Amino acid sequence: MADWKEFEKKAIAFRDARDWKQFHNPKDMALSLVLEATEVLEHFQWKNGKEMEKYVRSHKGEIADELADVLFWLATMSNDLEIDLFKAFEAKMKKNEKKYPVEKAKGKYTKWTEL
Amino acid sequence: MADWKEFEKKAIAFRDARDWKQFHNPKDMALSLVLEATEVLEHFQWKNGKEMEKYVRSHKGEIADELADVLFWLATMSNDLEIDLFKAFEAKMKKNEKKYPVEKAKGKYTKWTEL
Amino acid sequence: MADWKEFEKKAIAFRDARDWKQFHNPKDMALSLVLEATEVLEHFQWKNGKEMEKYVRSHKGEIADELADVLFWLATMSNDLEIDLFKAFEAKMKKNEKKYPVEKAKGKYTKWTEL
Amino acid sequence: MADWKEFEKKAIAFRDARDWKQFHNPKDMALSLVLEATEVLEHFQWKNGKEMEKYVRSHKGEIADELADVLFWLATMSNDLEIDLFKAFEAKMKKNEKKYPVEKAKGKYTKWTEL
Repeated sequence: MADWKEFEKKAIAFRDARDWKQFHNPKDMALSLVLEATEVLEHFQWKNGKEMEKYVRSHKGEIADELADVLFWLATMSNDLEIDLFKAFEAKMKKNEKKYPVEKAKGKYTKWTEL
Repeated sequence: MADWKEFEKKAIAFRDARDWKQFHNPKDMALSLVLEATEVLEHFQWKNGKEMEKYVRSHKGEIADELADVLFWLATMSNDLEIDLFKAFEAKMKKNEKKYPVEKAKGKYTKWTEL
Repeated sequence: MADWKEFEKKAIAFRDARDWKQFHNPKDMALSLVLEATEVLEHFQWKNGKEMEKYVRSHKGEIADELADVLFWLATMSNDLEIDLFKAFEAKMKKNEKKYPVEKAKGKYTKWTEL
Repeated sequence: MADWKEFEKKAIAFRDARDWKQFHNPKDMALSLVLEATEVLEHFQWKNGKEMEKYVRSHKGEIADELADVLFWLATMSNDLEIDLFKAFEAKMKKNEKKYPVEKAKGKYTKWTEL
């Protein structure tokens, strides 16, 4: 079991032990979230098709590390902005169900505004 | 309780109901992760100081929506790449403990390479 | 005088000498453009107010290097997609003049959709 | 002829007519540069191979628009930070010549740190 709140607690404990809350305003946290997400993306630069698949298998640990960094900021932002991310996710999925009704969206990657 | 695996299951159920797995190669998922992270960041464009704080309070729902989208891709990528994100997070936090030892990093935002 | 076409020629000559055109599909070029843009942004992480201003003055060369990398991809993409970026810029500025008419937009950072 | 300084002048004239300099601190400009770069990237989401090539041909105008937006921020930042982007580009290309010597880098997309 990996409770979401555990992520938050660990991230915040790490942050507070270093007295970093003073730097964690929402804008710089959002900026950090973007920087970490692009580090995930960087793994895929210039790689396509079979080569990409092979790369993913042989670099799973490195990619996992970058995803964990994204998670860190997601957890820290949710905590600081007092967002219940579990509820937010449930709510967003319900919105998405309406934006992308199965009968219209099935097998298409079209954006909901153009469905 | 909000188990991490619940996020994954919900995200994957949503995806599979729409037959979207065919589009979800790792590169396009990583790309989507970046696009959603930048939608979080967009909320903070041109806003600073007290104005930003006020904005955050009055737009909590919108920001939560964007964070939920980031979470969606994090959950989908972890599932497809067979990454146990909870373990990955634990492991990364341990690395970070070493990169940023409390006695050196306390109160500083300096990158570990320059500590 | 620094003609735009000069940028393109230099970027393409650099690329072709290394036989890299084979990797330069539009998607990976756009991805590289984003990665370089985030390297510009990374300079500003955790820095605000006077500290940011001071940092900008003392790191002008590093920031210039990153902007040059963004320019590289802009030039390469324009060349490969056969986009006349000078004309595109002129055209976009005219659209922006209409989206943000001076009398409405003056002194406001509001997005045109909400003006 | 499309002199680089022309881009800067036009971008700055547009900005100043709207009295927007007050918002254009370097951090928010860098943030805007990233947001516009990701709008270029968004065009390529879920598109690969022949489909991507076809998309590029049929959406050249839209992509050109987004590249022009990236250019806008590049020009505005260079101006405000008093960076001569033409010189910066020349200098960076010389560094890249050394990082990626033709004999080592030819036909490989390997990062210079691993060449």
